[in-house]
Amino acid sequence: MRFVKGFPATTMEEYQLNVINVLKHAAKYFGDREIASRLHNGEVFRYSYGEAYRRVRKLADSLEKLGINPGDRVGVLSWNTHRFYELFFAIPGMGAVLLEMNLRLHPKEIVYVANHSGAKVIFVDETLIKLAEGIAPHIKAEKYIIMADGDLPETKLENVYSYEELVKNGDENYEFPVVDEHSAATACYTSGTTGNPKGVYYSNRAMILHSLAEIHALGLRPDDVYMQLVPMFHANGWGLFYPATIAGAKLVFPGRYAVDALGPVLELMQNEGVTVTAGAPAIFLPMLKYLDSLEDPPRFNLRAWSGATEPPLAMMKGLLKYGIEVIHAYGATETSPLVCYNFIKPGLEEMSEDELWDMKRKQGIPVFGVEVAIADENGNFLPWDGKSIGELYIRGHWITGEYYKDPRTFDSFAEDGFLKWWKSGDAATIDEYGYIKIVDRFKDLIKSGGEWISSVDLENFLVAHPAVFEACVVGIPHPRWEERPLAFVVLKEEYRGKVSREELLEHLSQRFAKWQLPDEILFVDEIPKTSVGKASKRTLREKYREFYTK
Amino acid sequence: MRFVKGFPATTMEEYQLNVINVLKHAAKYFGDREIASRLHNGEVFRYSYGEAYRRVRKLADSLEKLGINPGDRVGVLSWNTHRFYELFFAIPGMGAVLLEMNLRLHPKEIVYVANHSGAKVIFVDETLIKLAEGIAPHIKAEKYIIMADGDLPETKLENVYSYEELVKNGDENYEFPVVDEHSAATACYTSGTTGNPKGVYYSNRAMILHSLAEIHALGLRPDDVYMQLVPMFHANGWGLFYPATIAGAKLVFPGRYAVDALGPVLELMQNEGVTVTAGAPAIFLPMLKYLDSLEDPPRFNLRAWSGATEPPLAMMKGLLKYGIEVIHAYGATETSPLVCYNFIKPGLEEMSEDELWDMKRKQGIPVFGVEVAIADENGNFLPWDGKSIGELYIRGHWITGEYYKDPRTFDSFAEDGFLKWWKSGDAATIDEYGYIKIVDRFKDLIKSGGEWISSVDLENFLVAHPAVFEACVVGIPHPRWEERPLAFVVLKEEYRGKVSREELLEHLSQRFAKWQLPDEILFVDEIPKTSVGKASKRTLREKYREFYTK
Repeated sequence: MRFVKGFPATTMEEYQLNVINVLKHAAKYFGDREIASRLHNGEVFRYSYGEAYRRVRKLADSLEKLGINPGDRVGVLSWNTHRFYELFFAIPGMGAVLLEMNLRLHPKEIVYVANHSGAKVIFVDETLIKLAEGIAPHIKAEKYIIMADGDLPETKLENVYSYEELVKNGDENYEFPVVDEHSAATACYTSGTTGNPKGVYYSNRAMILHSLAEIHALGLRPDDVYMQLVPMFHANGWGLFYPATIAGAKLVFPGRYAVDALGPVLELMQNEGVTVTAGAPAIFLPMLKYLDSLEDPPRFNLRAWSGATEPPLAMMKGLLKYGIEVIHAYGATETSPLVCYNFIKPGLEEMSEDELWDMKRKQGIPVFGVEVAIADENGNFLPWDGKSIGELYIRGHWITGEYYKDPRTFDSFAEDGFLKWWKSGDAATIDEYGYIKIVDRFKDLIKSGGEWISSVDLENFLVAHPAVFEACVVGIPHPRWEERPLAFVVLKEEYRGKVSREELLEHLSQRFAKWQLPDEILFVDEIPKTSVGKASKRTLREKYREFYTK
Repeated sequence: MRFVKGFPATTMEEYQLNVINVLKHAAKYFGDREIASRLHNGEVFRYSYGEAYRRVRKLADSLEKLGINPGDRVGVLSWNTHRFYELFFAIPGMGAVLLEMNLRLHPKEIVYVANHSGAKVIFVDETLIKLAEGIAPHIKAEKYIIMADGDLPETKLENVYSYEELVKNGDENYEFPVVDEHSAATACYTSGTTGNPKGVYYSNRAMILHSLAEIHALGLRPDDVYMQLVPMFHANGWGLFYPATIAGAKLVFPGRYAVDALGPVLELMQNEGVTVTAGAPAIFLPMLKYLDSLEDPPRFNLRAWSGATEPPLAMMKGLLKYGIEVIHAYGATETSPLVCYNFIKPGLEEMSEDELWDMKRKQGIPVFGVEVAIADENGNFLPWDGKSIGELYIRGHWITGEYYKDPRTFDSFAEDGFLKWWKSGDAATIDEYGYIKIVDRFKDLIKSGGEWISSVDLENFLVAHPAVFEACVVGIPHPRWEERPLAFVVLKEEYRGKVSREELLEHLSQRFAKWQLPDEILFVDEIPKTSVGKASKRTLREKYREFYTK
């Protein structure tokens, strides 16, 4: 792949893609459009894009006076509130970097993230002061700014400022600078299953181009109402509040909420007339369960992107009864996150209903601005036939090209002339229509006799058996077939001792060919977990390395 | 306005915004989606994005062998055909510049454009060979490539190649380079009322960002069907075939058509199920007249952007009867062209129907990526109150920042710190909601006693009188009021000598205040015209300079 320079253009090439322009635009043309934010006491605070921009200017003025400079990293520990939203403009607007601090991480990892990024100041929601106090002695941040709905709570933190005081005392005529579009606007650290989190720093340019892809993908309009469900400390909360702001949609922030008590969120959703949101089965499954439990359930008119894992068919169909259309989308911290989303292309409508539902479970088609490929272990590209399984390679305007100051960068990218690919670590097929289907983590695939077996598929089908509480399948070296699957099953308590290996193998036979079945199923009391609660396949693989050879 | 650099991002900042990626994306994900192109014999040629990309690769390979290099300017003289569409990818894809040659210009101006740009090769539609032969002796182009549906017609042109032969002989595995996104992709020369055309060179980046604005503004979807009505040699034909391609919409090219014989175009529109198009009252007015004349008129489901001049209310309402929703949009050659389009914002729906129609006649709200301001003669910004009239200033990613090698650049821009504004020459108001209303050309405004009078408003209302064939109003120096309006009226033949100055002034009084009325109305046989057929107000102002003073 060659790189060439052509003839100079006369267009305003110096005009920069800046995150702050998003709110400037909304304040000018949708100044009265509402932003609703649920406070910690359950009340809904309401204001507008015009007022938000005024507050953001005042805040930025105060932050500049506090000594925050272009290039500084500024951490945020918060739930999904209107203040977190304001920071997504104020901080990048000044040329500084908003560091998303994942409050679900182990405190040790949060300390790592704060120190690795060199965060100078940290914003803390009033409900997270304890967490901040715990990490403060171990990090180098100079100042803490508390975001509280009312009076500032007491705290052992030092050099503490009040968010609302800073807003109050700032100059509303503060002029944001033009920021070099290649400068980082936000940053998020991705927590793998091993090692320290890896830093991804998103440019202003990436955030804007990503927003323009999302605005088209979701067809966002001024009369939409967008609710920010995805935590804003996870890959920019899917970045959707940016395109929703460009579109002039009404915004709704749910504040702090719990997945096992979704009543208040659903009530807010209904009261505010939400039409667009995004989440994952981890929230949509309990949402369906909750709605099913109601005597007089509400009806919505809602399109909902679902990421993280494949949405179960029953969940998609179940939510559709309540007017919630689940749209499968796919991405990662490294991809800002949008890579692809699912929609049925013209020409495919003639499929049967079952075929269409099968299509809808796929991860979908990449948006313009992102390219994908699948490659074997040696980096050779594989055909798009819906069968060939390879590692999904991704590149584009908003895909990370390195991990910040991290030697793991070396193994995570594939060079390809002038451009490079990020190796996602996901194993996928791509069908003739261009639909991506993730089948496993690439390293968890089981290679048996030259064919791939998906550990995830086996696990999902095992868990569908009524007796199975949890299942984990790994590939174990095999003298004849290279690798063979070995399954670990935790039975539900009431079934322990009552279900046999043979019964589960027969269950699997309904769906899988004989050569795909695990050679052995081991009943265990628990599956070893990583720090983020995922099954540690590495532990199992190491412990049982010689299971089929000795 | 300051410019700052922040912290370096890790995202793939080297990934370039390239026009060729548009067709690459469509070929991959909408490979079977149809492109329909009406040939000169009236037949409709059909192929797909997949085949178009294959042809474009083969063509580019042949062009490279012919000696076209990155940075070369390549002219095109053509109607709206699928071949012109292919060139909009093949030429920028190679890093060269597609020069749009406006075949409506005077041949002398076409010669100027060809030589000023330094066009090396010129593509000519078979029906335009005569035009090309006329200008060939005066320009420096080395080669001519004829685009013909069948055999190559005879021609006196030298160094002639066949488009279809080049396609046939090219390598379909040609790999497009990555082009520096700041390199020009296309170029168009704007024809003012005086002097030579001025060159605007649009970068690859500008074309992509402009496309992403349009895809959102029109809500383009894969099931849309887009017809390219605007000539592709006018400001990229409004650029809409790019976003339509990104969206995977079906494309329809009408080929050569005449505004006074729209039957075949409307038939094509109906047969192909067109849902989106763009044009101007110059085509939509005859379209309405034609539809009104039919006994059994077709019904459409069509959204149509209308530019160039304010769409008459009767036209908008008339076309709506046939399912054609006219959406007022505004731009210029210097602005790629999209600046703003009209839609009714949430919160304004409660206006009365008449108020809403009045709103819809306005030019609308700027899209994200474009900023506007209104300024007085000294460059002071004016308030957005719907009353203050100023020159419309525009800046943004796809607005020109200079005229190529042209000293008129000096007067056409206003510096503003790190960024600058293009001075559009249009006089406008902006209301409290952000809606732009163009009231006149800035230099044609009449300043009377410190207040502005719009010459265009007076002209439009004069022409609404049944006796008036044509009207032109200019401001003439006045000893007391600085300027006063002077009206020139050409009466329809049957009314000559039968209508008085007083009658026309009374007609104007229905709408205008006394101080806004022309002090004098002169009946003339014709209005002097510029080379592009517009009224030459300059000629009138000069000739009648002392009308109110001597």
